[in-house]
Amino acid sequence: MSKQITIYDIAEALQLSPATVSRGLKDHPAIRKDTRKRIVDKAREMGYQQNHFASNLRKSKSNTIGVIVPRLNSYFMASVISGMEKVANAAGYNLIISQSIESKEKEFTNVKTLYDSRVDGLLVSLAYDTEDISHFDLFLAKGIPLIFFDRVFEHPQCTSIVIDNFKAGYEVTQHLIDQGCKRIAHVTGNIMRNVYSDRLRGYKQALANAGLPFDEALVYYCNLSEQAGAEAASHLLALPHPPDGVFCTNDTTAVNCMRVLKQAGIRIPEQIAVAGFNNDPLSKVIEPNLTTLNYPGQEMGELAAATLIRKLDRNEGSSINTLVLRHDLIVRESSLRKK
Amino acid sequence: MSKQITIYDIAEALQLSPATVSRGLKDHPAIRKDTRKRIVDKAREMGYQQNHFASNLRKSKSNTIGVIVPRLNSYFMASVISGMEKVANAAGYNLIISQSIESKEKEFTNVKTLYDSRVDGLLVSLAYDTEDISHFDLFLAKGIPLIFFDRVFEHPQCTSIVIDNFKAGYEVTQHLIDQGCKRIAHVTGNIMRNVYSDRLRGYKQALANAGLPFDEALVYYCNLSEQAGAEAASHLLALPHPPDGVFCTNDTTAVNCMRVLKQAGIRIPEQIAVAGFNNDPLSKVIEPNLTTLNYPGQEMGELAAATLIRKLDRNEGSSINTLVLRHDLIVRESSLRKK
Repeated sequence: MSKQITIYDIAEALQLSPATVSRGLKDHPAIRKDTRKRIVDKAREMGYQQNHFASNLRKSKSNTIGVIVPRLNSYFMASVISGMEKVANAAGYNLIISQSIESKEKEFTNVKTLYDSRVDGLLVSLAYDTEDISHFDLFLAKGIPLIFFDRVFEHPQCTSIVIDNFKAGYEVTQHLIDQGCKRIAHVTGNIMRNVYSDRLRGYKQALANAGLPFDEALVYYCNLSEQAGAEAASHLLALPHPPDGVFCTNDTTAVNCMRVLKQAGIRIPEQIAVAGFNNDPLSKVIEPNLTTLNYPGQEMGELAAATLIRKLDRNEGSSINTLVLRHDLIVRESSLRKK
Repeated sequence: MSKQITIYDIAEALQLSPATVSRGLKDHPAIRKDTRKRIVDKAREMGYQQNHFASNLRKSKSNTIGVIVPRLNSYFMASVISGMEKVANAAGYNLIISQSIESKEKEFTNVKTLYDSRVDGLLVSLAYDTEDISHFDLFLAKGIPLIFFDRVFEHPQCTSIVIDNFKAGYEVTQHLIDQGCKRIAHVTGNIMRNVYSDRLRGYKQALANAGLPFDEALVYYCNLSEQAGAEAASHLLALPHPPDGVFCTNDTTAVNCMRVLKQAGIRIPEQIAVAGFNNDPLSKVIEPNLTTLNYPGQEMGELAAATLIRKLDRNEGSSINTLVLRHDLIVRESSLRKK
């Protein structure tokens, strides 16, 4: 790799002092206009790197937004990022994205990397096991805006963008109750994350309101992978009293749960009604088609980027603490007993 | 946003000259050891940004790898990136990822953003309409390694990582011929990209070798989206002589093509046999299960990252021009007529 060009190299090439070059690159009025032009031209010619260059010229604005997500392997996250790209690009910003792979240590590394990349702001959905947000202090201390979406953390400096997961969990469970289910299982993730704990609360509340008992044996905690969905089905079928309904917190587990139930000869929805969450394209391919909760990923991404850019443009705080997007239940054949 | 800390601020705080601070941050032997320590400590304390800092201390190494992909919305790309993360993280590198959204202009913006982020190297799968790679000159001129994967471009300085798309296209078509298909349609993308043009060549060659005529009316060019798959089915069914087999260049179009064919009352595979490409999880959910070509995304990502890191660690060129990964045809019920 060739050597990094510094202001000292430019100074030497132009027979100027490094201080003059530095000021010239900053467009300092103490430097004559033609000298400033010579410095800028030489810097370009020698390949002096743009982030030095631009940050000096533009007071540190890189027009880049950093994004940290748990994983990039879901339709939901792809939709969120597509929404962010749309808004960011229209406003002249570029996204750079990193994955925490559900690890708080990796999330910390990502924070440092994006800080070093001089992003103007950060859009974050938290890792599985993140307990606090002290690793974002680099950003918060400098007043660089930080917005959480989907998997959020309450913080006075940060806006959060979510759906009402409690209500959504309640509605899915209520729908299964309305279809006659009396023993409804719930397949969920790490309840340290708001999205899963809120849906679990909604599930419990719907059971309670319907006078149905809550049975801890019917809650299956897992990593929400394809395999976990299949294992959930085997686990539930092996119970002394198997469920007659299953509410999975994502469509990946719901679809793979259904595959195993079907292989075991279970009729869906007659014997076990199934509902998922996310409205992933998978939900329209599995037969019977999967009842699910439509999660507005694209809109969430658009709103997260727009909120961040508004903060950047106005260079001020926001009084908005939480933005809640609408969701809707999509009823399909996997749960529809009463037609 | 608070002010960017420069070497001038550190110099003022320590009552040293900026040149001394600059040299101290570079660990220059002309500066006394205790002074160097004072400078480094103060720089940390004041929040002098790590990329300056690290680049000076570590001769410009950021331990960050840039990735540019067309889109993040496919299982294949998620697998590739998962493989890259695995290898990069184990070697102490962090990935930052950007999407070209299939546009060469956006790809150019990404190149500049990642250059300004001082990535140590770049892993790229090209956008739909990229015609040449002159926009990577920033990297090539500086000898920063650039590796192409999947959608590649021949260049003496760059290694490409691919599967044998010609052979794969040939094998899928040959399989449909073996099942008795005589009029095989092909649903494909922009043939400016190697992956699609090579599979199309394989398709044509297999037809030719079997003595079947090539009919341009049976080739459907599209953007490979869900909707395009559905439209392909409608288009093919409306032909005066509809096909008896369809080879789609991705599983998304194959699955959505199947949905429309099924809705039209077509029996799969008896009336029309269907095969896809990628071995997406969708292929095991659609009924009948989809015949597809297993595309080793995870391995491709691992190999791309490992090849790049080897170049970075050895700081030398590579004599490898192209690395070809194995693929395999997975035959399932959507095409299996002879059991």
